[in-house]
Amino acid sequence: MPIRPDATIEITAFRWVPPFAQGVVRDLRARWALEEAGLDYKVELLGQDKPPHYVKEQPFEQVPVLRDGDVRIFESGAIVQYIGDKSETLIPKDANGRYRAIQWTYAALNSVEPAVQNRVLLDAFYADQEWAKLRKPGADDFARVKLKRVSDWLGDKPWLEEDGFTIGDLIMVTVLRQAGRGGLLDRSPSLAAYVERGESRPAFKRALADHLEPFAANQPQGVAA
Amino acid sequence: MPIRPDATIEITAFRWVPPFAQGVVRDLRARWALEEAGLDYKVELLGQDKPPHYVKEQPFEQVPVLRDGDVRIFESGAIVQYIGDKSETLIPKDANGRYRAIQWTYAALNSVEPAVQNRVLLDAFYADQEWAKLRKPGADDFARVKLKRVSDWLGDKPWLEEDGFTIGDLIMVTVLRQAGRGGLLDRSPSLAAYVERGESRPAFKRALADHLEPFAANQPQGVAA
Repeated sequence: MPIRPDATIEITAFRWVPPFAQGVVRDLRARWALEEAGLDYKVELLGQDKPPHYVKEQPFEQVPVLRDGDVRIFESGAIVQYIGDKSETLIPKDANGRYRAIQWTYAALNSVEPAVQNRVLLDAFYADQEWAKLRKPGADDFARVKLKRVSDWLGDKPWLEEDGFTIGDLIMVTVLRQAGRGGLLDRSPSLAAYVERGESRPAFKRALADHLEPFAANQPQGVAA
Repeated sequence: MPIRPDATIEITAFRWVPPFAQGVVRDLRARWALEEAGLDYKVELLGQDKPPHYVKEQPFEQVPVLRDGDVRIFESGAIVQYIGDKSETLIPKDANGRYRAIQWTYAALNSVEPAVQNRVLLDAFYADQEWAKLRKPGADDFARVKLKRVSDWLGDKPWLEEDGFTIGDLIMVTVLRQAGRGGLLDRSPSLAAYVERGESRPAFKRALADHLEPFAANQPQGVAA
């Protein structure tokens, strides 16, 4: 387990989040990349009342932030790219392989995730609102079109590119896990299998366990787990 | 003007798009970065019926794609990063500056653009639908919260980071231009001024002119410009 109190790399994560967010908060992406890269790290756990200085590091007051020497960055896509550049395997060394891995992180975060979140958050946040009921069929169709594009591209390959698992797969799998939680992979067995391939990697399993561990320890009294 | 038929770099763009999309299609980002970097390029113009092979290059059938030697990439964020790496100025050389510039491209595309598009597309695509009318106040508030985060960060700086204009500003300005078209910058004079600073760069002006030029030349008969 590369969580070590004397590590030079530090990330931020939440001390506790409600059950619907447990397992999908974005520090998971940083942890997974760090585990794949075999890099030690430590964690600053934040409450929902973040310290006043935090907005100067993360203008949207989200997690994670990564600190490493004089490097201070936010946005899970950039953090995973930073870690990928420190790893031997997460980003191919040739120019085409490198930018194709990077391209898939943007595809996951800009071409797929917004459509998935628009559909999934209807149930999570707006289920009792009239507009959400009216919007749901269209949002469902739009998300499924984007997912079919990914499924068609993937075909019977194990990962998005022939080079093997990259940061592009890491981010895409985390986006598709959100889709799966929202029931959007029920007609996409190949994407469900792709997510399972990602989740079965030892690095993912360690990252998920470490991501979840504080939530059990910091369960607010009187709130259902 | 770096558009040259013998250039080694090629991007794709649309031959014509409806007026609401003219000036904001994403080939503009690639063109702007190429102009900032002083790199020659040529353009393959696509109709709405794309050639059958195109989906193998761009699984979402969008523009732009970038081709350069054996490099074939899509997603404007990745393309701008590729061009930035070939430039002298668009990405700082030190590690912190480099990843902070990259971080802002992800912030623009994942933390800001989805909220802006959710609000702006209500008017562009769904104005007559009941759910869109009910959703509009909430979507408006959510987009404005994200924009305020950017405005608070920017303060009175000319660009997002002290290092000067980077690929992060390039992508953020293009996202904020969409917000401005949707009327979302009316209470954000500092963001409106930031967009104007971007639009007044000579490289942006050349890129926008070259982006718009095919639309006038390929105006379908009987369709309003």
